[in-house]
Amino acid sequence: YAAYGAEDQLEKTIAYIQKEYPDIPVILDAKRGDIGATAQMYALEAFERYGADAVTVNPYMGGDTLQAFFEYSDKGVVVLCRTSNSGSAEFQSLESEGKSIAHHVAHSAVAWQAQENSASVMLVVGATYPEELGEIRQIIGDMPLLVPGVGAQGGGLQAVLEQGLTADKTGLMINSSRGIIYASEGDDFAEAAGRAAETLKDEINQIRAQIGA
Amino acid sequence: YAAYGAEDQLEKTIAYIQKEYPDIPVILDAKRGDIGATAQMYALEAFERYGADAVTVNPYMGGDTLQAFFEYSDKGVVVLCRTSNSGSAEFQSLESEGKSIAHHVAHSAVAWQAQENSASVMLVVGATYPEELGEIRQIIGDMPLLVPGVGAQGGGLQAVLEQGLTADKTGLMINSSRGIIYASEGDDFAEAAGRAAETLKDEINQIRAQIGA
Repeated sequence: YAAYGAEDQLEKTIAYIQKEYPDIPVILDAKRGDIGATAQMYALEAFERYGADAVTVNPYMGGDTLQAFFEYSDKGVVVLCRTSNSGSAEFQSLESEGKSIAHHVAHSAVAWQAQENSASVMLVVGATYPEELGEIRQIIGDMPLLVPGVGAQGGGLQAVLEQGLTADKTGLMINSSRGIIYASEGDDFAEAAGRAAETLKDEINQIRAQIGA
Repeated sequence: YAAYGAEDQLEKTIAYIQKEYPDIPVILDAKRGDIGATAQMYALEAFERYGADAVTVNPYMGGDTLQAFFEYSDKGVVVLCRTSNSGSAEFQSLESEGKSIAHHVAHSAVAWQAQENSASVMLVVGATYPEELGEIRQIIGDMPLLVPGVGAQGGGLQAVLEQGLTADKTGLMINSSRGIIYASEGDDFAEAAGRAAETLKDEINQIRAQIGA
């Protein structure tokens, strides 16, 4: 998304997906976070320029800086909570008042979602920290989770499903980026990416069947 | 910077500043924060596409996600610490191990700066929290601070200078955005912006003289 001058390609890619596959939601992984007027422009950029269905945002600056996103009541706002990278504990796992900062973000997300006419609030929790998935699921009820970090980053699917599913066995968006888009660097990149996506879907459904989900 | 499709104008504006006023550093207030490969692209975008001298980054994901920026040893990396917005206490002021999350970020910034061949590490602390300026100054020694929030956001210059200056009376980049660029919406916008910048500079120097800095 950040790629050097790639904004036009991004617009075209999203327009193509929405024309050809209108049922597939587009989540813009922009990790935005900024104050008032700039946050409004970022929300406009995500939801109107790019026409995304949801966008990832960074909670560090506080919920007031995310309000411009929450006001799009028919869109999704996916808040970074416990990220998949190896150093995510540095601040996210600091304990305050008996719970980690990531858990504070999860509690705030529940409050943000409860606002009238709010966008759908969701959280990012990495597949690399499956125990966090279970703990955060306890805090947020049936709020959806976006789960990066399977495949290339090493997170295990079985633990993600066991820990992250809601009581009615849903609520997870499991994201694989590099495992799919870099499946092949040859001319068969499109077919290879398609196969990698199918394989991941089959693995998820196989584990769901095993654990009765 | 986020403005709807304004990347080309931003490139041109920065190129103009660097050609006409090569002594003025350009700080890109992009508030980036993302994992490995994407962080590298964001660093490339800031320092090579836009040719900025420094860029603001968000620490929430952890220092490992900022390494791609720190590796540009002749550039500046300005880390959000205690931001100027009214809701910045929500997570930044949570207390852990006897200090706030913002103070944890300040301690980490000192460690990041100590890495060999690191970029110049700096922190964002809002003028709206002058007592934080003083406390964070104690943690970071003579590390420069980028201070938004004077003017339109209501932060007082005198408190900023009294609390934020280093022992040798330097170390502050006091930023006014809306107070300058929105000084006039008429045809005189350029002159009005110039006058607003001069006025702010004069006010700063007057207070410096008063407090013996």
